Formats: sequence, structure tokens, C-alpha cells
Amino acid sequence: MTDPERKPVKDTTPEFDVGALRAVIRAIPEPDPGAETAAWARLDSLTKPPRSLGVLEELAARLATLQGTDRPAVARKSIVLMAGDHGVTAEGVSPYPSEVTAQMVANFVYGGAAINQLAKHAGASLVLVDVGVASPLPVREGVIHARVADGTANMAKGPAMSRDEALAAISVGIETVRGLHADGVDLIGTGEMGIGNTTAAAAVVSALTGADPADVVGPGTGLDDQGVAHKVDVVRRALALNAPDADDALDVLAKVGGLEIAGLAGVVIGAASLGVPVVADGYISGAATLVAIRLAPAAAPWVFASHRSSEPGHRVVLDALGLRPVLELDMRLGEGTGAALAMELLDAACAMMSGMATFAEAGVTGRED
Amino acid sequence: MTDPERKPVKDTTPEFDVGALRAVIRAIPEPDPGAETAAWARLDSLTKPPRSLGVLEELAARLATLQGTDRPAVARKSIVLMAGDHGVTAEGVSPYPSEVTAQMVANFVYGGAAINQLAKHAGASLVLVDVGVASPLPVREGVIHARVADGTANMAKGPAMSRDEALAAISVGIETVRGLHADGVDLIGTGEMGIGNTTAAAAVVSALTGADPADVVGPGTGLDDQGVAHKVDVVRRALALNAPDADDALDVLAKVGGLEIAGLAGVVIGAASLGVPVVADGYISGAATLVAIRLAPAAAPWVFASHRSSEPGHRVVLDALGLRPVLELDMRLGEGTGAALAMELLDAACAMMSGMATFAEAGVTGRED
Repeated sequence: MTDPERKPVKDTTPEFDVGALRAVIRAIPEPDPGAETAAWARLDSLTKPPRSLGVLEELAARLATLQGTDRPAVARKSIVLMAGDHGVTAEGVSPYPSEVTAQMVANFVYGGAAINQLAKHAGASLVLVDVGVASPLPVREGVIHARVADGTANMAKGPAMSRDEALAAISVGIETVRGLHADGVDLIGTGEMGIGNTTAAAAVVSALTGADPADVVGPGTGLDDQGVAHKVDVVRRALALNAPDADDALDVLAKVGGLEIAGLAGVVIGAASLGVPVVADGYISGAATLVAIRLAPAAAPWVFASHRSSEPGHRVVLDALGLRPVLELDMRLGEGTGAALAMELLDAACAMMSGMATFAEAGVTGRED
Repeated sequence: MTDPERKPVKDTTPEFDVGALRAVIRAIPEPDPGAETAAWARLDSLTKPPRSLGVLEELAARLATLQGTDRPAVARKSIVLMAGDHGVTAEGVSPYPSEVTAQMVANFVYGGAAINQLAKHAGASLVLVDVGVASPLPVREGVIHARVADGTANMAKGPAMSRDEALAAISVGIETVRGLHADGVDLIGTGEMGIGNTTAAAAVVSALTGADPADVVGPGTGLDDQGVAHKVDVVRRALALNAPDADDALDVLAKVGGLEIAGLAGVVIGAASLGVPVVADGYISGAATLVAIRLAPAAAPWVFASHRSSEPGHRVVLDALGLRPVLELDMRLGEGTGAALAMELLDAACAMMSGMATFAEAGVTGRED
């Protein structure tokens, strides 16, 4: 099914260079510390022992600060699911064939996947983007067609992408969230589909954090120990061959990343530039967030970590980002499933903070000391 | 405000003795192992790598097993919030006065508390039960009036309750869930309000597990280190004075428990007897669940642990029950707030399991090995 000759499809994305990316990054606003103070003042006035809702209060306070209000609310939620393929699958790093990426995009369109159920349950729309699937899609409608290339090249044999391809994929993410923001979406979750992308994520995370590949490679969709050992070896070879520059996140992204990882980095940067908070899903989304924040440190406050994946490398990513995940459910599916579940908790945190009565309003006696 | 002479209000509850309790316990059904096998067969056929949704799949499989179906669903959810007061507050174990219990019941009725927002967000009704508040309630409507006594007696001076009072409070819980079951409620969360009840919970947990009071007493609504040390001392004195029999959970419950703890033990036993799964909230609910399962081991499969409270004793309870909580959000409010949040994840798990397509239905290629 895969076209043997990789064809960049440049004309589907606008011209976008490093200068254009820098302009987007410069637009990222800084959250207002005054709003944070006001948020905690309100939270501490509500009819509960102060801070007794723990992380739920922290989520509410963060969202209130980002929204610049002490009555946070989420009006419209979307999960942006970027799909892309990976040339490195030729090395046998996944128990599933590359064709599954395109098949799953069709499954997303027809509502049969986990993310369809979980996005619906969270009241979030699901926005599907083909930023680099290798096979022809079995569906035309219901997908944003923004394919930068028919998958990446095999990073075990050379760079996965050119720098221009990585930038083009980032711009797809930025453009996608611009459209959602124009539609009134005020909370964006990340999701992805791409057979082989835990291998790319591991290479990106190893390159950017200095972690040993053995500490960031996991079973992905279900490799056995021998498969994991082989995957570690593939990541080592890709890093040795391409020698990505750890101080240049765009170089890392291009040489050992993926088109959907680049697209999600663009989602994070684009959302932050528009003042829209982002809920990052699991390991692949985490790798994309790490790229985004290395490129744009000002984006960091705009990101919530949804869950801790059972992929071992996700812990390394969260530590590098200094983020505490909301959920720990041993999930490792991707698609945005963790982001969808965490969005429900963010919603609940808003309802709590905006809807509760204060001690004064309720006529409840406060502490005696 | 508190009546100085404790008056048992026997006529609000039916005659209920140990024989009646045993009959309820005997009615608890055993989940069908065949349903569990069928549940996992369906989960493993859905379009995702097997088990890649981790705990979400475990929740779905458990609920499917309890419901005897491979398409689990929750139609109606309720949180039963039992309110009761504690004579031990005379020892200065809480920074809030006992009167706050009655005031908070009014706050629940008027919708100002955290649980109002979180129950609504979860789509659960909130059922308020006065099983033993000490002060007159400032509201008449919106509360089930089933007060067994005007709070417990001070366990640092003698038994908190008589055995008959404990049984009467258990029967209030059983009767409450019978009513909800008749209304079609198929998932019940526990919640409580009672100034001083972390002290009672600690005494119950220490007595039933053998844990040292210092390991199960925490700050509750917000004691400082000195306050916690005093609370440990109060628990030690209550246990030494009353010498509850660890092999007789009803004796422990009566001597050092609470009316709302007894009521919630009745909720757990009653729900299990009707084949209705229960989502246990935090520390106080955990102590009640421990009492329930010591009285009725067959109730164990019917209980989900919602979250791990930041109260240190909750870990002891969860370990004793062999339950893994769904959420870890450093919450310590009670009221059923953790149960409400976990109910949303149970709902999401049902949506996932019942709504996803199989590999065959979606035309997605399976693993290559």
C-alpha cells in the first residue's frame, strides 16, 4: 500500500520558516501572577478546609490563572489527533504493520476507537489531521488533509525528515489550533496515531534529555523483552548515525522525530501563543511537548500533563518538564485517551471553583484557631 | 446548640437486630466468573493493543462482571452522604466546632458545597441522610431524617454508641440503598460529613487492623503537628478504655466508631446484597467499608476504591482491603468528592467497553506475530 517513493506534499502547507516560528513563539503570553493570587484567595474562601481538594484545587488555580479569572470555565474542548507514519517500522520495531495507521484513521472517522468514546464522554470534539500517514487513507471526509510527506524516512538509515519538513509539520499544528481558537475552543488536548512512534519518541527524548535509550524505550503496543532490546538497538543506531544536536530541538525533531510529533509540537506552541491551555496526552505527546518547550520555554505554563503512561520513558519526559500528571492508570494507548479523561477532571475543577459557596455565603462557621 | 442529654431516637428506624443483619449479608450474590472471562474476551477484541488502557480496562471488566454483561453501563448514579456528629470533639480533635456538621448539611441542601458541584458534574444524585447529627438541622426538606442519636458519646470517656445504636445506624444505610435500588440506581457512591470523624475512623482502623494509632491519625481538616499528637493520644485513650474486640467489627464500630460510619457500612452491605456496585470515597468511607467487609466478606467484590486520601490512615485501609484506588489527587475533604470523580472514570470505562469497535468490525489489521 505504501508508495515506495517518498513524496513531500509541500503545497498542502503554507510557507513557514524558522522566522515565522519565532514570531509565533514571541506571541506566547505570560500568565498573570495577580490572577494566581486571586484564584487561591477564592479557593481558600470556599466551604471546605483550605487545600483539602489537593490536586483538584491546583488544577482549578492553574486554569483560573491562565484564564485570568477566579471563575474558570471551559466552554469548548477539542482533541487534536495527528496521524503520521514512521520509516523506522522497516526495522521491525512494532508488532503492527504501518498500514494500521491509515486504517485507524478510518476507525476514528467512523467512531470505533477508544478516543471516540472518551472524547465524547469528555464533551470534546475530535479533530483528525493527516500530517504524514504513509498509506492512502480509506476515507476522504472527516480528516484535515495536511500530509507533509508519506511518512518519515527510516531514521536507522538517515534523517527521518528534512528541517523544512519538520517546520512544515509544526505549522500544520499551529494552523489547526488557530482554526479551533477561531471557533471558540478554549481547551485543547493532544493525541496521535502512528505505528512506530514510540520508537521515534524514545529517540527524541533520549537526544533531548541525555537519557540512555534503554531507559526510554518500552514495549509500545506490545513488544516482548527481545523486541524491546531490538528497539533499544535501533534507537542507538539512529542516534549514532544522525547525531542530533541536543541544543537544537528542531534538529532533533527532524532527524529522529516524526511528522505527528512535529505537528503536536506545533499544537502546543500555537495554543500557547493564543492563550489556550493544552492537555498533553501520554508518551508521544510528551515527547512533542518536550520539543515544543525546548523551542518555546514560554509555552511551559500552558501545558497540563494528563496521565503517566506505562511506557517507561514517559516518566523521563514528565521529570524533564517538571509536570505532575493528573492520572496514573497504566495506560499506553495514545490517541489522546489520557487527555480526554484528564479534561473531565479539569472541567470538574472549574465546576468546583466557580460553583461552590464561600463560608460567608453559606453561613458556615470557620476554623476556631 | 447541642442537647446535653443524648437522646436515642429509636422510633425513626425499624427494629433491626444481628439476625436481620445476617439475613442481609446472606443475600449478597457472588459475581459470575463466566462474565469476567467474557468481559476480557470482548476487551481484547477491541481496536487497541490488548490491555493498553490499563486500569480503565480493569474497571470496565470489573463492572461488566458485576453486571453480568460484556456491555456494561451505568444508568443512574447516587452518592449517599451520611452526616453524624462525634462526642470526641469535646477532646479538641478538630479545628472546627461540631455545629459545622449541621451547617454543612444545610450547605449541601442549598448546593454550595464541593460535593454538590462534583456530584452534578458526574451526573449523580446526592442523597443526604441525618443519621446522627448533634445540632438541630437548619433545614427540614432535602434530607432523610433518620437520626439514631444526637451524635455519639465521647469515646475517650466511654463507648461511642451502644451495639443497638450501631445496628440501627447500619439499618439506615441498608434502607437508604433499598430505596435507591427501587428507583433504578445502579451505582452508589459513599460520602460523609461529621466534624471529628477522622478521629473515629482512625480508632476503628487501628482496632480492626492492629495499626498503631500514630500510623492512622492524620491532620484531618487541618491540625498542626501538636494537634495530631494530641489526636493520637485521644485515640490511644479511647482504645485502651473501651478495649474493642478486633474480631467483632460490630463491637469496634459501636465502641469507637460513628453513626455515619455505621450508616455507610450499611450502605456497602445493603448495596452488595442488592447486586449494586459501590464506589467508596476516602478515609472515613474506607473505615466504614472495612467494617462492612469484616462483617460481610462477600461484599468485597462489590466495592471500588475511588481515590487515595492524603490522610495517612487511608493507605492502611486500602492495603487491608486489597484495593487499588483509581485516583491519587491528595484530596482529604470527604463528602463523597473522590467517589464522584471516580464515578466519571467508571462511566468512561463503560463507554469505552460498550461503544468501541472490534478489529473485525473496523477492518483493522491485528498484530503480525
